[in-house]
Amino acid sequence: MAQRYVRVQNQEGIIYYGLLQISLDVQVLDAPPWLQGQPTDLNLEPDSYQILAPCSPSKIVAVGKNYADHAAEMGTDVPSEPLIFIKPPTSIIASETEIKYPRQSQRVDYEGELALVIGDRTIDCTPEEAHSKIWGYTIANDVTARDLQKRDGQWTRAKGFDTFCPLGPWIVRELNPGARLQTFLNEDANPVQSACIDQMVFPPDFLVSYISQVMTLQPGDVVLTGTPLGVGQLHVGDRVRVEIEGIGRLENTVTKR
Amino acid sequence: MAQRYVRVQNQEGIIYYGLLQISLDVQVLDAPPWLQGQPTDLNLEPDSYQILAPCSPSKIVAVGKNYADHAAEMGTDVPSEPLIFIKPPTSIIASETEIKYPRQSQRVDYEGELALVIGDRTIDCTPEEAHSKIWGYTIANDVTARDLQKRDGQWTRAKGFDTFCPLGPWIVRELNPGARLQTFLNEDANPVQSACIDQMVFPPDFLVSYISQVMTLQPGDVVLTGTPLGVGQLHVGDRVRVEIEGIGRLENTVTKR
Repeated sequence: MAQRYVRVQNQEGIIYYGLLQISLDVQVLDAPPWLQGQPTDLNLEPDSYQILAPCSPSKIVAVGKNYADHAAEMGTDVPSEPLIFIKPPTSIIASETEIKYPRQSQRVDYEGELALVIGDRTIDCTPEEAHSKIWGYTIANDVTARDLQKRDGQWTRAKGFDTFCPLGPWIVRELNPGARLQTFLNEDANPVQSACIDQMVFPPDFLVSYISQVMTLQPGDVVLTGTPLGVGQLHVGDRVRVEIEGIGRLENTVTKR
Repeated sequence: MAQRYVRVQNQEGIIYYGLLQISLDVQVLDAPPWLQGQPTDLNLEPDSYQILAPCSPSKIVAVGKNYADHAAEMGTDVPSEPLIFIKPPTSIIASETEIKYPRQSQRVDYEGELALVIGDRTIDCTPEEAHSKIWGYTIANDVTARDLQKRDGQWTRAKGFDTFCPLGPWIVRELNPGARLQTFLNEDANPVQSACIDQMVFPPDFLVSYISQVMTLQPGDVVLTGTPLGVGQLHVGDRVRVEIEGIGRLENTVTKR
């Protein structure tokens, strides 16, 4: 199994980056791993920590309509350049925590996505240079209030509510380019979304290059790479699970805000 | 003169919050003032520091079309609710530094705006509660690549370039509700924008309340309150100055990226 990089909080509320062992112990690092964090002697046992989102980005840059079949289901063409938007850091939650359904919306959708974690300060890089700037990969759910997205035109409110960016549960360094992304609702064994990440219109290296020509990416920043066909509605009480082969499962429950 | 709260960097690159004296000395605080920073014995003389943007927000939430006359000049109605969008922290620059004209755009505009600095963690507050959450006021220029704004539909790229959020030069605690905002280009004594901030469609307390019902605002976060009539084009070599009565002048030069 690939090394899993986690961020956890102990019972005193102290936050650590660490390596998740097969035993579920966490070997603590002395800094975020993309800032050359090294293993320490501190080991956390499974009952002594809570898993957090695996990084704490200064920004989350997301991409719309990056799978042709999803663009078609939204009734739009694929854009000729990546269409970027920002989700605020306050939207991030960990796996196994609650998505809060806001009272302002009557239609909240899941959107399973591959998330890239940036390792270096990145300005104006080429797609070729971008590959080495992607430190690792995790899973995101770009939760969206579909009714507000349509009403506002700008997507910030619809995608910016607190808890609307489940992220995690951990980061891996390498990913099979043909890895499958699947989203599941409740007990249903059939996925509501299922696509290979190589079906992206603009692949990860291109996205990082494109974004870096607009805004500097910082270590620990997150890029969401878009969702495939099959977006659909969440209801209070639902459990939603996004899986990516070679990473793991991001799982959250929907509750009233 | 009202107390002016600054953020500065000394010659070793150490960043301090402080009080700007009439002498232009900076009396250093031991923390950001909205986190109860107290004066220390450390005093910086005018030649020993560089002024930075006056805060370092976790997010900048901005509002579109919040003056009726500007909405009209853009050919649109005033929205029935505030229209929010996000500028990334990497877009912030200080007064007297350079706006970099990106190669992707042929049309970059200034937009002079009043900026609010949030003092407390703010979730779901009413407009009445919001007033006490606004710690102070500063000046912003919501620089916008107008051609990309129209082309993309989403405003993130057009408003998110590095250097596209001049902010400062300092924060004051109180502001006359009828204060005038004016924008000047180069040596022209006639302002290109001139409006009283009480002409906003949604006033500051309402905006903070509205945003806090979507996303948690953190201490030091910034809310941009929209621009009045008179937006227009910047060219490489221009100097642009935004003034608000009772705050000061935010002044920047445009250079090639």
